[in-house]
Amino acid sequence: MILSALLTSVGINLGLCFLFFTLYSVLRRQPGNITVYAPRLVAEGKVKEGGHFNLERLLPTAGWVKQAWEPSEDDFLSSSGLDAFVFMRIFIFSLKVFAVGGVIGMFVLLPINYAGSQLSDDSDFQHKSLDSFSISNVNNGSNRLWVHFSAAYVFTGIVCYLLYCEYLYISSKRIAYFYSSKPQPQQFTLLVRGIPIPPGSTCHDTVERFFLEYHPSTYLSHSVIRRNNKLQSLVNDADKLYKKLTNLKQKNDAPKRHRRDGCLGICGRKVDIVDHYERRLGDIEDNVRLEQSSLEAKEVQAAFVSFKTRFGAAIASHIQESVNPTEWVTEKAPEPHDVYWPFFTVSFLKRWIGKVVVFVACTSITVLFFIPVAIVQGLTHLDQLETWFPFLKGILRLSVVSQVITGYLPSLILQLFLSFVPPIMIMLSSMQGYISWSQIQKSACTKVLWFTIWNIFFANVLSGSALYRVNVFLEPKEIPRILAEAVPSQASFFIAYVVTSGWTTIASELFQLTTLLSNFMSRTFCRNSDGDFDPPSIPYHSEIPRIRLFGLLGVTYFILAPLILPFLLVYFCMGYIIFRNQHSLIYTTLECKKLSKVYVPKFETGGEFWPTVHNSTIFSLVLMHIIGIGIFGLKKLPLASILTIPLPILTLLFNEYCQKRFFPIFKDYPVECLIKKDRADQNQHNMIEFYDELANAYNDPALMPKKYSERSDSQRSPLLNTS
Amino acid sequence: MILSALLTSVGINLGLCFLFFTLYSVLRRQPGNITVYAPRLVAEGKVKEGGHFNLERLLPTAGWVKQAWEPSEDDFLSSSGLDAFVFMRIFIFSLKVFAVGGVIGMFVLLPINYAGSQLSDDSDFQHKSLDSFSISNVNNGSNRLWVHFSAAYVFTGIVCYLLYCEYLYISSKRIAYFYSSKPQPQQFTLLVRGIPIPPGSTCHDTVERFFLEYHPSTYLSHSVIRRNNKLQSLVNDADKLYKKLTNLKQKNDAPKRHRRDGCLGICGRKVDIVDHYERRLGDIEDNVRLEQSSLEAKEVQAAFVSFKTRFGAAIASHIQESVNPTEWVTEKAPEPHDVYWPFFTVSFLKRWIGKVVVFVACTSITVLFFIPVAIVQGLTHLDQLETWFPFLKGILRLSVVSQVITGYLPSLILQLFLSFVPPIMIMLSSMQGYISWSQIQKSACTKVLWFTIWNIFFANVLSGSALYRVNVFLEPKEIPRILAEAVPSQASFFIAYVVTSGWTTIASELFQLTTLLSNFMSRTFCRNSDGDFDPPSIPYHSEIPRIRLFGLLGVTYFILAPLILPFLLVYFCMGYIIFRNQHSLIYTTLECKKLSKVYVPKFETGGEFWPTVHNSTIFSLVLMHIIGIGIFGLKKLPLASILTIPLPILTLLFNEYCQKRFFPIFKDYPVECLIKKDRADQNQHNMIEFYDELANAYNDPALMPKKYSERSDSQRSPLLNTS
Repeated sequence: MILSALLTSVGINLGLCFLFFTLYSVLRRQPGNITVYAPRLVAEGKVKEGGHFNLERLLPTAGWVKQAWEPSEDDFLSSSGLDAFVFMRIFIFSLKVFAVGGVIGMFVLLPINYAGSQLSDDSDFQHKSLDSFSISNVNNGSNRLWVHFSAAYVFTGIVCYLLYCEYLYISSKRIAYFYSSKPQPQQFTLLVRGIPIPPGSTCHDTVERFFLEYHPSTYLSHSVIRRNNKLQSLVNDADKLYKKLTNLKQKNDAPKRHRRDGCLGICGRKVDIVDHYERRLGDIEDNVRLEQSSLEAKEVQAAFVSFKTRFGAAIASHIQESVNPTEWVTEKAPEPHDVYWPFFTVSFLKRWIGKVVVFVACTSITVLFFIPVAIVQGLTHLDQLETWFPFLKGILRLSVVSQVITGYLPSLILQLFLSFVPPIMIMLSSMQGYISWSQIQKSACTKVLWFTIWNIFFANVLSGSALYRVNVFLEPKEIPRILAEAVPSQASFFIAYVVTSGWTTIASELFQLTTLLSNFMSRTFCRNSDGDFDPPSIPYHSEIPRIRLFGLLGVTYFILAPLILPFLLVYFCMGYIIFRNQHSLIYTTLECKKLSKVYVPKFETGGEFWPTVHNSTIFSLVLMHIIGIGIFGLKKLPLASILTIPLPILTLLFNEYCQKRFFPIFKDYPVECLIKKDRADQNQHNMIEFYDELANAYNDPALMPKKYSERSDSQRSPLLNTS
Repeated sequence: MILSALLTSVGINLGLCFLFFTLYSVLRRQPGNITVYAPRLVAEGKVKEGGHFNLERLLPTAGWVKQAWEPSEDDFLSSSGLDAFVFMRIFIFSLKVFAVGGVIGMFVLLPINYAGSQLSDDSDFQHKSLDSFSISNVNNGSNRLWVHFSAAYVFTGIVCYLLYCEYLYISSKRIAYFYSSKPQPQQFTLLVRGIPIPPGSTCHDTVERFFLEYHPSTYLSHSVIRRNNKLQSLVNDADKLYKKLTNLKQKNDAPKRHRRDGCLGICGRKVDIVDHYERRLGDIEDNVRLEQSSLEAKEVQAAFVSFKTRFGAAIASHIQESVNPTEWVTEKAPEPHDVYWPFFTVSFLKRWIGKVVVFVACTSITVLFFIPVAIVQGLTHLDQLETWFPFLKGILRLSVVSQVITGYLPSLILQLFLSFVPPIMIMLSSMQGYISWSQIQKSACTKVLWFTIWNIFFANVLSGSALYRVNVFLEPKEIPRILAEAVPSQASFFIAYVVTSGWTTIASELFQLTTLLSNFMSRTFCRNSDGDFDPPSIPYHSEIPRIRLFGLLGVTYFILAPLILPFLLVYFCMGYIIFRNQHSLIYTTLECKKLSKVYVPKFETGGEFWPTVHNSTIFSLVLMHIIGIGIFGLKKLPLASILTIPLPILTLLFNEYCQKRFFPIFKDYPVECLIKKDRADQNQHNMIEFYDELANAYNDPALMPKKYSERSDSQRSPLLNTS
């Protein structure tokens, strides 16, 4: 790639970004788009949905950027929670790292690279290859490489320092967040699994006896987990039906109340839908009653056990309960609304086998991902399409169409396959036996991260079959050399990748293109909305890996091709402002001052995503060092190569220290905090009331129709009155 | 090696063993050797030391074998502790494994190997090479190799089953042992390190405030650790001197009370030693007083904190105490007499750096061990010796002497270097910041185990430089092929190794050759013994690795050369009987029925050595599988090679399961046990009295002269009366 091509690409993509920004600033003020750009307000009932086109709101402004800056850190924390806060710290941390790295890279390394003559590229400045700005252009054996060597040490030192500060800062925030929290059920509750029920006894009795015996002073109550998938789906059906019914009744829109009862409502005789729905609800109700009567038998060997104090719960969760470590297995309970009910693997062994199976599946998907992609891409050659769809022959022979198909279809297929990965990883994680959505998402985040690094970074660097790439890592001695040969040659690809993929994805995050389109479609074509509106939460498991991939690119290319750094800085700047806008307080001019937000936190892990970010940064650093060892060898400076070897070791030791110093804080709260908080509660809160709530907090929503009636915000359904 | 040579070697070594047994059965009944063969009796004062030659006790008998069989498992457990019991289980487990393996190997695999014709060894049976009995003799691509393949699966299955049973059995014993134990200080006490002392406060106050604040209901007392190396050595000196003095006074042996005060007691003027010693004791006493006055300043930031219940101690040890995980670090206290006082690294960071340094040192010693050995061996060539010691020229030129030197000196040097390894590993482990001898020995055991596997197994298999061997493991893909080529060719060497080294070391363990010699020397030459007699404990850190090495040989050679198995069975049989004899109850005919024992348990870890044994067995199995994968490939049966791949994976999964199922029991006792035991104590024992003892249990013996005076079993020394 030559310089002018890069500049053109930058120009085009900057233009695209500005287009997105302008459209956003116009569209977000159209009341019809409020569910797209401020779904949280709609969900919280702070603003009415719907409305019509309005001409005077068509002028683009940049006011939203100013508004995104306004809220302070504390406002942000209190409205979006610690997880979103940690998410924003990823941008701040990356900005710090690449600001320092950018200064070193652009003002020290880049001039040295450009002054070299290894590649003997004699074209004028505009047509220079981007490789002239990379380490490849420095003459072999040149002493100037020592500058790169020093830069690697200095940069590593700075990144480690920043990592340390950030870990310290976030862990202090985590503790502060804990101190400022109200009593929450999950702090007092454990999930106990593998309950050995003696013959002739029930799970309920066994749990009560055990905890009264061994934790008499702190045990409060428990609720045995009952699972009945049939009942669950019945209650879900009733739930939906009831909502529809309420909607219909409220609208009282006579002509719409009739439809034909045949397929798709087109044929068959005309019926009153309200009558029809009420009859169906009645049927379901009967079934539920039938299922509930046979419920006693469906207890699983697990229970949520609540304690009087946080410390009491911590005691029971930290010390192995039974002589057999596979029985009475305790773990911290998630937030009540965060519990992942559908999958409650019962036995220790089954869960363990599940983990192994998921590990194998996940590794295969990661390693073999390109095989199905290549097969599908192979199927979409023009001549194939012509044989399959002969009627398209005329269109396909048009040169524009054929160019678009051959140019874009393969990458479209790749994108399509890639978009399946986060949901697949979520599915795999949910099969691992995690009991909460937050844990599932955390685990999926790690899986997607490895997937991204392997299939975007390594697949591009080590072109060749999946087997070849796996083989490279089976010969550890050769890794530095192979990487040092392959990585610098992909520098221009990754610079272009940051500009095209990076900038546009982050801009379209602001613009919410898919949501906008689907919203537009639903408003235009099916005016009869379900009233079933669910504001989105940040999809950490797909966003964090994407952002960290750019971090990895920046760190690994820091000594190789520092030209990538300014583009990354632009990416992280845009990302920071846009995500701050998406889920921070902004004061809209629409009606009056109020909260406006895209994302609603669905759970609160207390910043537990940070260790993943930390570890991936350490991985990037070590990868940079390994490539450095290889590149100094290739550049005929073996001494620098040898002297780089301590760098990854020191970095790993630093990581080891951080793991010991900070990671325990992210796993569990210490005695000091627990006891202080317990004592503060006794003074501040009405704990008796809280204990009452606690006793019912962990009931399966499927078995507790009360919950569902509260969620539908209206009078009770007939089902609830009977149960 | 040919069959007849092996048989000769077997004959010679069997003869040697019988010689040792005969000598033992004679010598053990000589009263003069009682400190060698029953030191525990002497130490416990159950029999008087010394005595004279006695003619009627010269007839050899095999009575000791019968006596070694007699005691039941419970007798053994109660007299020798769980660690010795676990040590004996290693033999029982190995016997079971190799009995099964031996049957399969000798009656299934060996005939198949012998029936092959790959090596085309046409010599008669007696001169057959041992390789004819190994897998190398099976024809390439022969379907008979499927028998070996099945044998690998069957054997792995059996070993895993036995491992599981053994782990289950030993963990049940561990729990039973805990239930049957009396209240012991270590069960109620924690070591707390990294105490952050606020300015203006003392360590004592800080600890008290912290535990009264956060563990008010369970905290009992604490003792701050004070370290003063100078004081320690002074007290040690006083200790020795006082013992000598008491001895001298008791003997009242006038002529011996005078000696010259010059060097080595040869020149100088004659003085009364009692006066002399008393004067020196006075000096030391003054110094001690001086040091003790400046003691306050030498508190280290660590304390032993005792709790009222075992459960209370467990709570404080399991949950992180402080927000900063590097402060208030708790760990279980060792037995009071097991504390390793001299090394109390203070800060978290220092201990952590210590660990890293030890890791590096230990790896270097393991990998580079042969370099100094080769250098020293190189220095001991005959001509070198002649230049260094010209006066020996005449003797060295004698052919017998020169043959002995060239033949035995190199292996003598190797043995000498090898004998340094366990003490060096102990030293390294003690630098890692362990606080008890048992932990140091456990850690050294693992280190020596790896050292042995690397420097005896791999060094013989992969002959070549250390760098070459390290290189092999840096190319994981090549490992099976290289091992499959190298391991079978060393089969005859290892068979001979089992017969020579294995059998004789185990027989000399019974015979206690070195102790016998040193005892004889001391009785003959320096009749004035110090009275400072310390019975030995089992050196687990050198014995377990040696025994496990033979286990590893048996497992890895099971499919390659099953001829090794009967010799291993003999080894483990002898080992079982001999070690049972060495530290079990036997009823001697010497005077009357009483305990007779070599080893005294110095500490009790509750069987914590078993996980090491388990892991090393799993390692052997996986090594066998890897070699299997390689050997089936070499033997042109690629399908068998591929079908062997699941075997190591299944084995590792099995190990993972065992780790989850049993390892937690070996780390900590569960709530169930702790609370049951606590409640039982409240009924059975006088806990008030025990709490009083507990308060003073963890005082540094150097600072608590009281302890030392009790140990010397006599009236208090002048030093103690003043302090």
